[in-house]
Amino acid sequence: MDENIKLREERIDALLQEKKYAMLRTELTDIPSVDIAEIIDDLDAKSTLIVFRLLHKDVAAEVFAHLLPQQQQAIVEVISEAKLKEIIAELFFDDKIDFLEEMPASVVKRVIKTSSEEERRQINQFLNYPEDCAGSIMTIEHVSLRKEMTVVQALEHIRKTGPDKETIYTCYVLSDSRVLEGIVSLRKLVLADDDQVVGEIMSENVISVTTLDDQEEVAHLVRKYDLLSIPVVDKENRLVGIITVDDIMDVMEEENTEDFHKMASMAPNDQEYLHSSTFSLARKRFPWLLLLMVSATFTAAVIGTFEDILSAVVVLAASIPMLMDTAGNAGSQSSTLVIRGIALGEIELTDYLKVFWKEFRVSLIVSVVLGLVNMVRMFLFGYSFLVAVTVSLSLGATVIMAKLLGGSLPIAAKKLNLDPAIMAGPLITTVVDTLSLLVYFNIASMLLGGL
Amino acid sequence: MDENIKLREERIDALLQEKKYAMLRTELTDIPSVDIAEIIDDLDAKSTLIVFRLLHKDVAAEVFAHLLPQQQQAIVEVISEAKLKEIIAELFFDDKIDFLEEMPASVVKRVIKTSSEEERRQINQFLNYPEDCAGSIMTIEHVSLRKEMTVVQALEHIRKTGPDKETIYTCYVLSDSRVLEGIVSLRKLVLADDDQVVGEIMSENVISVTTLDDQEEVAHLVRKYDLLSIPVVDKENRLVGIITVDDIMDVMEEENTEDFHKMASMAPNDQEYLHSSTFSLARKRFPWLLLLMVSATFTAAVIGTFEDILSAVVVLAASIPMLMDTAGNAGSQSSTLVIRGIALGEIELTDYLKVFWKEFRVSLIVSVVLGLVNMVRMFLFGYSFLVAVTVSLSLGATVIMAKLLGGSLPIAAKKLNLDPAIMAGPLITTVVDTLSLLVYFNIASMLLGGL
Repeated sequence: MDENIKLREERIDALLQEKKYAMLRTELTDIPSVDIAEIIDDLDAKSTLIVFRLLHKDVAAEVFAHLLPQQQQAIVEVISEAKLKEIIAELFFDDKIDFLEEMPASVVKRVIKTSSEEERRQINQFLNYPEDCAGSIMTIEHVSLRKEMTVVQALEHIRKTGPDKETIYTCYVLSDSRVLEGIVSLRKLVLADDDQVVGEIMSENVISVTTLDDQEEVAHLVRKYDLLSIPVVDKENRLVGIITVDDIMDVMEEENTEDFHKMASMAPNDQEYLHSSTFSLARKRFPWLLLLMVSATFTAAVIGTFEDILSAVVVLAASIPMLMDTAGNAGSQSSTLVIRGIALGEIELTDYLKVFWKEFRVSLIVSVVLGLVNMVRMFLFGYSFLVAVTVSLSLGATVIMAKLLGGSLPIAAKKLNLDPAIMAGPLITTVVDTLSLLVYFNIASMLLGGL
Repeated sequence: MDENIKLREERIDALLQEKKYAMLRTELTDIPSVDIAEIIDDLDAKSTLIVFRLLHKDVAAEVFAHLLPQQQQAIVEVISEAKLKEIIAELFFDDKIDFLEEMPASVVKRVIKTSSEEERRQINQFLNYPEDCAGSIMTIEHVSLRKEMTVVQALEHIRKTGPDKETIYTCYVLSDSRVLEGIVSLRKLVLADDDQVVGEIMSENVISVTTLDDQEEVAHLVRKYDLLSIPVVDKENRLVGIITVDDIMDVMEEENTEDFHKMASMAPNDQEYLHSSTFSLARKRFPWLLLLMVSATFTAAVIGTFEDILSAVVVLAASIPMLMDTAGNAGSQSSTLVIRGIALGEIELTDYLKVFWKEFRVSLIVSVVLGLVNMVRMFLFGYSFLVAVTVSLSLGATVIMAKLLGGSLPIAAKKLNLDPAIMAGPLITTVVDTLSLLVYFNIASMLLGGL
C-alpha cells in the first residue's frame, strides 16, 4: 500500500514537471480525495494551484475539505473569485463551517460575500455553536420525507434531491413545521412494497440529540446504537441538522486524544504534533508541570521534618526513588482503568463502592507480593533486616494508598463535574508521594529510631 | 435520557412481577435491542428467560449478540434446543463467531450440531483467524452483484437477498470465481438510470484488506476513507467477508483502551472493569510493577555511590522526590504526544529527527522556566544559594533528558516492531530517574563537595 502511494506521488511529480496536464487529470481521477489532499501536502503553491484547476469541482471541494487550515488559506489567497465561489458552493455545510472557523476575518468576509442572504444567516448561526457540541459538527444536507408519501414517491424524491445530500441512507420524516416525526432507512424503503406509506414503515422511536449536547455524548449514542447518522433537533424537536458516522469516528479519536493529553498532564492539543509550533507545545505542557513541581514542596517538607533519622540512617534515602515510582505506577494503573471505564460508560458514579472494594482487594494482593519480592531483593543486596522490613512495609502501605486514591479520585472528579481524566498518574503521584514519605519515615522512626 | 431508562426498567420489573406478559411483549417492541440487553443485565435467570421467550426471533438474536459471554452461557444452558437453534440461525456470522469464541467446548459442540456441514466448515475456518486481525471481525452477510446486471436487475436482486444481509449499502461485484471486481453503493444504484449496467457505474479502485491484516490498520482505512464497510479478500483477491463501520467503532475504542492500559504499564484487559475478577486484575498489573520496582535497584545504587555527599548535605535528599516527579511528568508528556501521533498516523518513522528537534526546543523553553521558578521557590523557603543552584540546574538537565527520551523511545519501539505504547510514562520515568540522580549528585559533588 505505502509503496503504491510513493510510486503514485513520483508519477504525479513527473507529470507536473513535464507539464503533461491531460495525463495528470486522468491520473487524478482514480485517486480518493483524501489521498489527493495528502499529495498536495508535499507540493509547492504553484503545483497545488495546477492540481486544483484540473480537478472536477465536486472533487476539488472534497479535497479542499481535507486540507489543513494553513493550506486552505494559502489556496483561498491565490485562487480566482469564480473558482472560490465554485468550491465553496460544493462544500458540505459542516466542512464549510469547519473551514470558516479557522480562517481570518478577511477570508470569512470574502467567502460570505459569495453566499445568499439565507445562507449567510445560517452560517452565522452555525459559527455561534460552542466548540465540541453537536451543533458544531452537524451538517444540513439530509433527505426529508413526508409521512403521507408512498414508497415509490419517497424513492422518486430521493432520486431528485439525493445527489447533493451527505447521506441518503437515513431519511427524516418531517411535519409542516419541520418537527421530526420519524426516520426511515433507505434499506427499509428499498425492501418495502411500492404502495406502502412512509408513515407506516418509519420508526418513531428516534434517537436524537440537541444542538448543545456534548459531542462525546453524541459519539456514545452512535456507537451504542450502531447508527449511520443521528438527527440534531432543537427544543421543539424540529430538525436542524444531522451528524454522520464518518464525522463521529473523528470525534471519537479527538476525544481519546484529549484524554491521553490530559492524563499526561497537558492542556489538550487539537493540532497535529508536527504542525504545532514549539511555543504552543511548551505552553500546553507548562502549567501542570509547574503546579506539580511547586506542590513537591510538601515532599521536601516531609523529608525536612525527618532529617534526623535520615542523617542517622543515610541508606534510607536509597529507597526513596523506588518507593515513589512504585506508588506512582500503582496509582496510574488504577486511575487509568477507572478513567477509561468512565469514558466508555462502563463505570457509573453509583459504582463507587464496588470500585473501591475491588481496588482494595487487588491492591492487597499486589502489595503483599511486591513487599515479599522487595524483602528478597534487599536481602540479596545486603541491606540490614530492619531497613528491608521498613522499606517493604512502606511499599505495601503505599501501593494500597495509591490504588485506593487512583480508583476513587476519577469518580470524585466526575461527581464534581470535572473531567475524570485530570485525576491521572501525575496528580495521583504527587499526592501519593507525600503520603508514602510520611508512612516511610514514620515506620523508619519506629523501627530504626533507637539505632 | 437516563431518567427514561430508569422509568422503563421499573415498568418492566412491574410487568414481570404481575406476570402481564402480553403487555410486556408490547413494551419490549419499542426498545432497541442493545437496551434490552442492558435491562437483562439486572434480571435474574428466570425473568431473563421469560423476556427472551417474548422477543421476536430476530430481536432475540440481536439482544443475545449484545450480552456478555457469562450471560450468553447462562441462557444457552437453560434454553430449549429448538429456541437455541432459532437464535443461532438468526445471529449474524460475526456475532456467532464472537459468541463461540467465548464458550466452553461443550456449548460449542452443542451449537455446531445445529449447523449444516458447510456452515461447520466455515465456523471452524473463522474460529482459526488470530484475534485482532481482519478475519476475526468480519462477517459473511453481504450483497454480491454481477457486472452484467442492469440497475433494475441489481435492485431486484438486493430486494430478494437483502433482508438477511448485515448491510446493503455497499454491494460487491464478483466474478464467477468470487474475485472482487468492484463495488457499487446503493446510493449510486438508486440515483442511476434503470438501464445502466453495474459494470459501468461500479468503482474498480476498491480499498480492501486481507484476512490477516491488523484490525487497527483496518480501522485506520475505514476512518480515513469515510467507508461504511470494507471488503476482506484472500491472496487471490477473492471476497471472503466484509467489516461494517459499527464494528470498526468498537475496534477503535478497543485499540484505544489497549493503549491506555499499556501506557499505564498494565497488560491490556478486554473485559469491562467491573466484570473482571480481582485476581485477573492483579495479574495484569503485576508484571510491570515488579519489573519497574526491581529496576529501581539502579536508583538505589546511584544514591549508595554518593552516600558521602548526601551525609554531608542531608538537605539534598529533600529535593529527590521533586526532581524525579518533574522528570517523570515531563517525559510522560512527550512520550504521550508521540505515541498518540504514531497511533493516529500523524508521525512516521521518518519524522524521527523532526520530533527530536522539536522536543529539544520545547524542553529548552520548559526547563529554563521551571529552573527559574524553582530558584525563586527554594530561595523563599530559605535554602542556601548553592543548593538551590544545584537543584535548578539538575532540574533543567533532567527535563531535557526526559523529553528527548520521551520523544525518541516510542519511535525506536515502532522501528523495532514493538508497540510504541509501552514506551510511556512508567518506563521513561524509571530510566530518567537513574539519569537524573546521576546528574544531580554529580552537580552536587562539584558545587558542594568542598563544603
